[in-house]
Amino acid sequence: MFDELFGARDDQAWLRAMVDAEKALAVALAKAGVIPASAAAEISQCPASFDSAELGRAAVGPGNPVVGLVQAMRSRVSAEAGLYVHFGATSQDIMDTAAMLLARDAVGSMLADVDATAAACARLADSHRRTIMIARTLMQHALPTTFGLKCAGWLVALDEAASSLRRLRFSAQLGGAIGTLSVFGNTEVPRLFAAELGLSEPLLPWHTNRTRVGELAGALGVLAGVLGKIALDVTLLAQTEVGEVAEASGGGSSTMPHKQNPVRSVLITAGVKQIPGLVSTILAAMPQEHERAAGAWHAEWETLNSMFSILSTACSRTRDLLTGLRVDAQRMRTNVDMTGGLVMAEAVVTALAPSIGRAAAAGVVKDIASSGRPFREALLKDPRVGLSEADIDKALDPAEYLGSADEFIDRALQR
Amino acid sequence: MFDELFGARDDQAWLRAMVDAEKALAVALAKAGVIPASAAAEISQCPASFDSAELGRAAVGPGNPVVGLVQAMRSRVSAEAGLYVHFGATSQDIMDTAAMLLARDAVGSMLADVDATAAACARLADSHRRTIMIARTLMQHALPTTFGLKCAGWLVALDEAASSLRRLRFSAQLGGAIGTLSVFGNTEVPRLFAAELGLSEPLLPWHTNRTRVGELAGALGVLAGVLGKIALDVTLLAQTEVGEVAEASGGGSSTMPHKQNPVRSVLITAGVKQIPGLVSTILAAMPQEHERAAGAWHAEWETLNSMFSILSTACSRTRDLLTGLRVDAQRMRTNVDMTGGLVMAEAVVTALAPSIGRAAAAGVVKDIASSGRPFREALLKDPRVGLSEADIDKALDPAEYLGSADEFIDRALQR
Amino acid sequence: MFDELFGARDDQAWLRAMVDAEKALAVALAKAGVIPASAAAEISQCPASFDSAELGRAAVGPGNPVVGLVQAMRSRVSAEAGLYVHFGATSQDIMDTAAMLLARDAVGSMLADVDATAAACARLADSHRRTIMIARTLMQHALPTTFGLKCAGWLVALDEAASSLRRLRFSAQLGGAIGTLSVFGNTEVPRLFAAELGLSEPLLPWHTNRTRVGELAGALGVLAGVLGKIALDVTLLAQTEVGEVAEASGGGSSTMPHKQNPVRSVLITAGVKQIPGLVSTILAAMPQEHERAAGAWHAEWETLNSMFSILSTACSRTRDLLTGLRVDAQRMRTNVDMTGGLVMAEAVVTALAPSIGRAAAAGVVKDIASSGRPFREALLKDPRVGLSEADIDKALDPAEYLGSADEFIDRALQR
Amino acid sequence: MFDELFGARDDQAWLRAMVDAEKALAVALAKAGVIPASAAAEISQCPASFDSAELGRAAVGPGNPVVGLVQAMRSRVSAEAGLYVHFGATSQDIMDTAAMLLARDAVGSMLADVDATAAACARLADSHRRTIMIARTLMQHALPTTFGLKCAGWLVALDEAASSLRRLRFSAQLGGAIGTLSVFGNTEVPRLFAAELGLSEPLLPWHTNRTRVGELAGALGVLAGVLGKIALDVTLLAQTEVGEVAEASGGGSSTMPHKQNPVRSVLITAGVKQIPGLVSTILAAMPQEHERAAGAWHAEWETLNSMFSILSTACSRTRDLLTGLRVDAQRMRTNVDMTGGLVMAEAVVTALAPSIGRAAAAGVVKDIASSGRPFREALLKDPRVGLSEADIDKALDPAEYLGSADEFIDRALQR
Repeated sequence: MFDELFGARDDQAWLRAMVDAEKALAVALAKAGVIPASAAAEISQCPASFDSAELGRAAVGPGNPVVGLVQAMRSRVSAEAGLYVHFGATSQDIMDTAAMLLARDAVGSMLADVDATAAACARLADSHRRTIMIARTLMQHALPTTFGLKCAGWLVALDEAASSLRRLRFSAQLGGAIGTLSVFGNTEVPRLFAAELGLSEPLLPWHTNRTRVGELAGALGVLAGVLGKIALDVTLLAQTEVGEVAEASGGGSSTMPHKQNPVRSVLITAGVKQIPGLVSTILAAMPQEHERAAGAWHAEWETLNSMFSILSTACSRTRDLLTGLRVDAQRMRTNVDMTGGLVMAEAVVTALAPSIGRAAAAGVVKDIASSGRPFREALLKDPRVGLSEADIDKALDPAEYLGSADEFIDRALQR
Repeated sequence: MFDELFGARDDQAWLRAMVDAEKALAVALAKAGVIPASAAAEISQCPASFDSAELGRAAVGPGNPVVGLVQAMRSRVSAEAGLYVHFGATSQDIMDTAAMLLARDAVGSMLADVDATAAACARLADSHRRTIMIARTLMQHALPTTFGLKCAGWLVALDEAASSLRRLRFSAQLGGAIGTLSVFGNTEVPRLFAAELGLSEPLLPWHTNRTRVGELAGALGVLAGVLGKIALDVTLLAQTEVGEVAEASGGGSSTMPHKQNPVRSVLITAGVKQIPGLVSTILAAMPQEHERAAGAWHAEWETLNSMFSILSTACSRTRDLLTGLRVDAQRMRTNVDMTGGLVMAEAVVTALAPSIGRAAAAGVVKDIASSGRPFREALLKDPRVGLSEADIDKALDPAEYLGSADEFIDRALQR
Repeated sequence: MFDELFGARDDQAWLRAMVDAEKALAVALAKAGVIPASAAAEISQCPASFDSAELGRAAVGPGNPVVGLVQAMRSRVSAEAGLYVHFGATSQDIMDTAAMLLARDAVGSMLADVDATAAACARLADSHRRTIMIARTLMQHALPTTFGLKCAGWLVALDEAASSLRRLRFSAQLGGAIGTLSVFGNTEVPRLFAAELGLSEPLLPWHTNRTRVGELAGALGVLAGVLGKIALDVTLLAQTEVGEVAEASGGGSSTMPHKQNPVRSVLITAGVKQIPGLVSTILAAMPQEHERAAGAWHAEWETLNSMFSILSTACSRTRDLLTGLRVDAQRMRTNVDMTGGLVMAEAVVTALAPSIGRAAAAGVVKDIASSGRPFREALLKDPRVGLSEADIDKALDPAEYLGSADEFIDRALQR
Repeated sequence: MFDELFGARDDQAWLRAMVDAEKALAVALAKAGVIPASAAAEISQCPASFDSAELGRAAVGPGNPVVGLVQAMRSRVSAEAGLYVHFGATSQDIMDTAAMLLARDAVGSMLADVDATAAACARLADSHRRTIMIARTLMQHALPTTFGLKCAGWLVALDEAASSLRRLRFSAQLGGAIGTLSVFGNTEVPRLFAAELGLSEPLLPWHTNRTRVGELAGALGVLAGVLGKIALDVTLLAQTEVGEVAEASGGGSSTMPHKQNPVRSVLITAGVKQIPGLVSTILAAMPQEHERAAGAWHAEWETLNSMFSILSTACSRTRDLLTGLRVDAQRMRTNVDMTGGLVMAEAVVTALAPSIGRAAAAGVVKDIASSGRPFREALLKDPRVGLSEADIDKALDPAEYLGSADEFIDRALQR
């Protein structure tokens, strides 16, 4: 039920990755001449489907599921080949390598969605260059901006989060029982092992050097923050009183027919709110004892699983959200005028400054703005304002006060 | 796989609790005369088994699984009765009530394990009153204590954590769409609803007042800390160099026959390390907007699920750990002597103080202790130490320097 | 700068509490006949003001500031009395006891502000019983409620958070070097010590049983969530487009004269957002090694300091916020009508149900509501709606559809 | 007191950075021809020392300290120049730019310490290539390794953490009130502003795009994890029962002369345990509303301050720790033998495998190892072990079973 809503944690994917690691190890061992090629051939043909519940039960004794998996794999190959399953490896080699394979896949899938979302942002940014809306600071109307610039901001944030994800190191792990490769006598096997899996070869085994896992968590945390910002903006802009955007198809209410709940945004928010706590778990688990941790390492597994499933779902939901977003440009324009032009006060000051000085201009405009009278009329009538009606209307025109919005959109699009 | 290792999050249990809530609502409505008794009778007979994956998929549109469940329940009763399924309730009424039912059950099950664990501690505390061991501060040998007192300390911590859990408020939720009970016109239905489920009736609907959820998280966080302390102590005492305790049956290693991994402790540690981050998620989600939150509420579900499954497993594992703990009293005694009596320096100072003053005694003893010579011999030979050999031996006897350890054990046992 | 903005962490208060603990220890020792009354009298007269920076520097060597403080206190009393400063205690006894004294004071001060805030809520709840406003779920208009009920909800949440704070155990700590009271030989001194300070006497020394600290953190986390909910609601209601409440004196903007920033709410939000992470730090530090932790204990000090200062400030700011809140009842009423009566659709269904059945009524109303025509006119003209104009107007009147709002307010006020 | 112990949060440094930002803005404005060069010259001479408490009090009204600072700066320059202080900027421009300046300095200082620590690791790794010690997994003796390899592992982790820190983007912030640069009309000023401060120019203003802050937090979190791992290893190795390393000068105890508390490690641990919660605060604050957040942004300031001060102190303490670490190679060697050679069982299996097959060899060795008899003697006497005494002694020699330890050390040193 919750898997469909927030993303499934996938034990079978873990198992497949673990089996992939065991097979790649056999292949690497054969290539290095450590085990017979025939054994490796047989191992690499071993069926990859196992009963995850059974392996789970078998995992309680040794404290990880590798021991049971190795036994199960051995039972599926010949006795001869069975001798070489998992040869020279430790359980953590397999779990860590599998985690990196899963991370690579999960991040790859997230990146595809992030890129598609960024493309949707780019389209919105370009097509809404001239869609004037009010910018809000501390939730209050501030000055006019464009919806295009808002989308450009989302775009840049998505790109930056993606850039961090692209820099992540997905490394194989193969150190043997304690990280000395005591069984092999040289480092050729780990090199071949990493190559076989398309993972990078680490400088050293990283059993208790968890920088990779910490960096992964950090980058996912940043991505969550970016998705959360977009969902929050949409939720706020979709408020009944604001009404500037709506999701493609709203979450209706049977008893409240007027409601158009921003359900995608709500579920994205629900997902990303779970990430910072999970990141803190990963980081707090980084100090790992000696050559293998007594619990901190084991705490990573489900935490990573949660992060992968929650964020993958949130990424694809954000892509849907922005691909189908409905924008009400008219409502945006109407909202700009809600304060009767007061949001243009800074522009009026700027227009007035050349003649009477900026300080005096600010004083006059503040005075008029706080008078309670309609702003345009008051400006026209006030003798201190030596501007023509045309000048005043120009100063009050939001379209004339967008600063570098357009250039910023270009920058974001040309990234 | 990980479910077996760290505890399963149970969608079917959620579904059952949701169905229980819908049934109790129908019963309460009938008792209050709002709906026909026949409809309530029919609804309360509705089979409780549903396809959680299907309901999960149906939940994506409205943003929660209640809408789909209500439809499914309606399809299983007559059209007439169907009209009264979920009558007057909002989705959050059902989800929150189900969460409280699950929490009550999960906490109940944890408490049973905590109590059994406390009983195991009590037995250990009593039977090891005279088992002298070294107390360690900042991981260094300090003064002698008893293993009984250590177990009494675990016992008191378990009791205190349990006491917090017993104070938790498990309340029904029934406020209707926005918490005004607009459809009912009075508060009799919520009262009957709570009674039907054996939950407490809240003063007000608590849709966006999440104190109950926050308190639950806090109490679970404290429990996790207590379990973690026990597991950490066992892990440290089971180190090869310390060897004072061992788990009932160790996690062996096929290639390292000497290893007796403290696997239960390791898995308990792995579990409890995930809790503080989850608690922070619940607390960070407490500020919920207006009359229903746009994401923060939804973030609670999986977070609570994780806490319940992880901690239930950790509780039962801690019970097993302490029930079967092997204590090596001889090794404990040997370790006390590891520093050649230096850990008794404070006792020697106390013995010497009456004759030459505490300050002088401290100076003399420090001087001797840092001389590098065997402590007892040096004390015997040093002219500044005017104590008989019997006095010195008494001062050096750990059993004579246990302070109030025994009284503390009594206190813990008589709690 | 930030101290004034978010609350100061007060080293001098810590020092005073530490000195209070040392003095109470001397008094307890004298009462128990362990040390001379004259020494205790002298120690309890020792000036309490010390150079906190100097003690801080002296703390780096031993790892805590007690060693330096004891030396400083000894230098201020006679050599004879100096011998009895800190007699039988360990540094952690003093630090933990001081922490509990600070916690009691901080919580006491928070409770005073929370109670005053609750009183402000009670006044608002009572005086705004008939102030109709729209309830919002998922940030969308839902059904009418009253501002009084919203304030009653805040009130109940504050009361519940306060109730948790009132249940906290503030206990003295006195266990000696390793928790056996090896120097005293009985437990009278700790009993007298606790009584002297007005703290509770714990069953056992709790050097590495951190339930008290965890419970404190949890209760503070819940309080933060409650304050955050109030600040969030105010921020949302103060949005330019909503405009239903405003802070007493807004944070203006020199260049944007129309702005009334909800600065108090913003700063409260800023504060409470820091709490969940700090709670997770405290909980993650609960597993403490053996008889004194190697770092986890030390991690509590600054974390507690931050929590106390941030939350004390947030509490007093929330009191100011609600004491001075400006409520725009007219704007609330106007906003209710923003959807042209559609928010009353459920009420119309209820009115129509007796004649044509609830299902049919729901169908008809949904049909009309989604027609796009003005709701009231459409209802009047639709032949399927067999209601008089008076009936329709009654069904469309928000004041007639407030359910149990008033009773809930009474409940909250009579708590 | 705590500042000296864990690092001071430095308001004056913030103030200086804020003033630097205001001055750089004036210079940039003058270079761009927006304001007179004379005004910029005057502003850039403005004294930088302000009363931080006064500015703090003035910050409560507007919600940030920039407004007060600008007023204070204006009062120190001529009225003419005063007009151009802060021209075109918004408070967040100054705060964010100052935060980046502080971050750059803090990270720079941390990197210097990390590099020095890495150098100390390199020296230890090289000089202890042949210092055999036991590797421990799950806190149990596993196989022999070298202390050099352990240090190489710390070295690589430090390098990796440093590498993340070096990739951080420290960008200027200059977007004006809402990020459109409405006052300037072009993007030259932000370009010159960034150049003036030696910060990078962002693609867009990043008022509510907090990727930089999230990445900073993530990288600091990883660094904390690396420092924590080193401190944890030292603490464990310094246990009385292990005794393989000691800190340069221990934290002694007046009453327990034998104690050598690993105080540096303890304080490092205390510091880094506070970081994951702080990281979660930063990440949870990333979703920021519209064009300026209502609280989430403000929550960053003190959180960053805490991270900078805690981690700077932890870095310099780790440098001291490793620079002065005392290594007891003899004790390491003794501990290897603690299990009577059983830790060499894997090596014996490997030696035996060629003659009787790996599976049979494993069975025989396991049988002998679990017999309880002295391992070497039992191997010599068992008829199934067809190895000469020399072969057995070679298999039992830890120095012969170090795998690729040496190559790994070389790799780490040649990084």
